[in-house]
Amino acid sequence: MQWYFVAALLTILTSSQGILTKLSQNKDNTYDYDTATVPFLGEIFKLLVSCIFLWREKETSPNPPKLTKEWKSMRLFLVPSVIYLFHNNITFLTLKYLSPSTYQIMGNLKIITTGILFRIFLKRKLTKLQWMAVLLLAIGTTTSQVKGCGDSMCESLLSGHITGYILAIVSAFLSAFAGIYTEYLLKKNNDSLYWQNIQLYTCGVFFNMGWLIVGDFQSGFEKGFWWQRIFNGYTLKAWLVVANLASSGLLVSWLMKYADNIVKVYATSMAMLLTAVLSQFLFDVKATIQLVLGIIICMISLHLYFTPVHMLVDLPEIETPVRREEDP
Amino acid sequence: MQWYFVAALLTILTSSQGILTKLSQNKDNTYDYDTATVPFLGEIFKLLVSCIFLWREKETSPNPPKLTKEWKSMRLFLVPSVIYLFHNNITFLTLKYLSPSTYQIMGNLKIITTGILFRIFLKRKLTKLQWMAVLLLAIGTTTSQVKGCGDSMCESLLSGHITGYILAIVSAFLSAFAGIYTEYLLKKNNDSLYWQNIQLYTCGVFFNMGWLIVGDFQSGFEKGFWWQRIFNGYTLKAWLVVANLASSGLLVSWLMKYADNIVKVYATSMAMLLTAVLSQFLFDVKATIQLVLGIIICMISLHLYFTPVHMLVDLPEIETPVRREEDP
Repeated sequence: MQWYFVAALLTILTSSQGILTKLSQNKDNTYDYDTATVPFLGEIFKLLVSCIFLWREKETSPNPPKLTKEWKSMRLFLVPSVIYLFHNNITFLTLKYLSPSTYQIMGNLKIITTGILFRIFLKRKLTKLQWMAVLLLAIGTTTSQVKGCGDSMCESLLSGHITGYILAIVSAFLSAFAGIYTEYLLKKNNDSLYWQNIQLYTCGVFFNMGWLIVGDFQSGFEKGFWWQRIFNGYTLKAWLVVANLASSGLLVSWLMKYADNIVKVYATSMAMLLTAVLSQFLFDVKATIQLVLGIIICMISLHLYFTPVHMLVDLPEIETPVRREEDP
Repeated sequence: MQWYFVAALLTILTSSQGILTKLSQNKDNTYDYDTATVPFLGEIFKLLVSCIFLWREKETSPNPPKLTKEWKSMRLFLVPSVIYLFHNNITFLTLKYLSPSTYQIMGNLKIITTGILFRIFLKRKLTKLQWMAVLLLAIGTTTSQVKGCGDSMCESLLSGHITGYILAIVSAFLSAFAGIYTEYLLKKNNDSLYWQNIQLYTCGVFFNMGWLIVGDFQSGFEKGFWWQRIFNGYTLKAWLVVANLASSGLLVSWLMKYADNIVKVYATSMAMLLTAVLSQFLFDVKATIQLVLGIIICMISLHLYFTPVHMLVDLPEIETPVRREEDP
C-alpha cells in the first residue's frame, strides 16, 4: 500500500468528519447523542479493529508477528495520552484569553512546530525547500481561514492577551509533540503495527473514560453516570461519525509508522480545505477569495515538498542557477 | 553595478512614489499642482538626464558609444507608447465594469502575464520552481490587498460584470507586453542604453503631451491650454514626486537592459508591500493579518526564484528526493 494512497484516504475521511458531524445535528443545531462520548467510542472501535487485524495477522502470516511485551516498552504508550491530557487542559485555558477564531488561526502553528520537533527529536533533516513548503502550508491554511478585516475581526485577532498567545504556542508544541512521540514509538522497533495500536488505544480508552468521569463530576451527575447514557440517541448518522473518526485514527497510525508526521500534517491540512470547499455546496456558506488563495498556496506547498527536485528544475539552468548575473 | 542593488533602489523609489504623492497633498486631499502633468514632466526629466549621460559617455568612454540611427530601428520605440495608449484606454473602460478594489486585485495578474510573455516572446525558460515562485508572488500581493469579507467586499469582488474581468485580463497582457517589448528593444543590439532611452522617452514625451491635449479638449479648455498652467502650484514636494517618478523610470530601463522583466516585477511588488508597511507608521492605516501573510508569501517567492538550487537542497537527499517511499 503506497503512503500517498493512504494519505489521500485520510484527507477524505478527515474532511468527512466535520460534514458528517454537521449532518448528524438536529435542525436546531443540537445533538440527540452525547458528543463527548464520540472519542471514547472511537477508541473502543479502533481497539477492536486492531485486535481483529492482529489475530488475522497471526493466523495468515507465515512469520509470527513480533510483539514486545516488556512493561519498560509498553508504558511508553501512555506518553501520547498524557500529552493530550495536558494539551486539552491548555486549550481550555487558552480559550479564556483568546477568541475562538484567533485560537483557530493560531492552531496553524502546529504545522510549523511539527516540522521543528520532527527535526529535533526524530533527527530528520528537511531541505530548505521543504522548510519553505512547510511554512507555506501554514500560511496557506491561515489565509483560507482569515475571515476579513475592516470590521472588528482584525482587532480581535491581534488584541488578545499575551498569555493567550503564549498558551497557544505551548499548545501547538504539545500537540505536535504527541504526534512526533507516536511516530517515534511506532518506528522504534519492528513490532506489528496492530500490537502497537492495541497498546496505544488501550491507553486512549482509559484516558477518554477519565474525561467522561470528570465531565460527570463537573455536571454534578445531573445526567447520571456516563455508562448509563452512553448509547442514548445514537442514530446511524452518529455511528457513522464514530466509525469515520476511528478509521481516520487507524490511517493516521499507519502513516506514522510507514510514512511520517509531515505527510499526516499535509493530509489533514488538505482535508481542512476540502471541507471548506464541500461546505460551499452542502451548506449555505459563501466562498471567499481567501479560500481560493489559500488553496493555491497549499497546492504549491504540496508540490514543493513532494516533487523530486530534478523535476522542479529540469533545465540546463541547474548547473548555473544564478544566470541573472550573466545577462548582457 | 549589480542588478540586485539597482532592484533594491527601484523598490525604495517606487515605494516612495505613493508616499511622496500623499505628502504633496493638501490637508483636504486636494493638490495645488495638476497631477496629470506629472508623467509628462517625468518624461522630460528622463529625456534630459539621458541626453546628459549620453554626452558624458561620448566624452569619457575610450570607444565611442554605438548609436543605431536607421528609421527602421528607431520607429520600433514607438511601440511601447502605443501599447500604453491602448492600455490606458482599456483601464478607463474596465473601471466602468469593475470596482476599483476589484481592479486593483486583478492587477496582480500582470505578474503572471509577464511570466507568460517572457517565455513566449523572449524565449526565456523558467524552471517549474521559478514558475511556482512567480505564481506565489501574484498570490502574495493579492493576499496583502484583500480587505476582508463578511461585509460587502466579497460580493463586489466576484460579482463584477464578465466584460470587466475580460478587459482586466486584456489589460494585464497589454501592460506586460509593453514591458516585454521594451526589454526586447533594449537588448536587441549593443546600442548605448542612453541613446535607446532618448528614443524611448522622446516618444513618451509626445504621447504624454497628447494625453494633456485630450484632457484639455475633454474639459472644454476650462483651465486653458496645458502649457499655460504646467508649472502652476509646483512646490518642492511636487518636484520631488516628478524626480522620483523619473528616477524609477530610469532604473526600470536599466534593469530591462541588464537584468529582465521578472526582476522588475519583483522590485515593484516588493515596493507595494513596503509602501503598505510604511503606511502603518506614516499614516493612520491599520495593519491587517493579510498584509503579514502576503509579505511572508512574497519573501518565500523571492527566495525560491533567486536562490541557487544547490542552496535550496544542500543535503544528501538530493540524489533520492522521493525518500518517503524508502521509509520502513
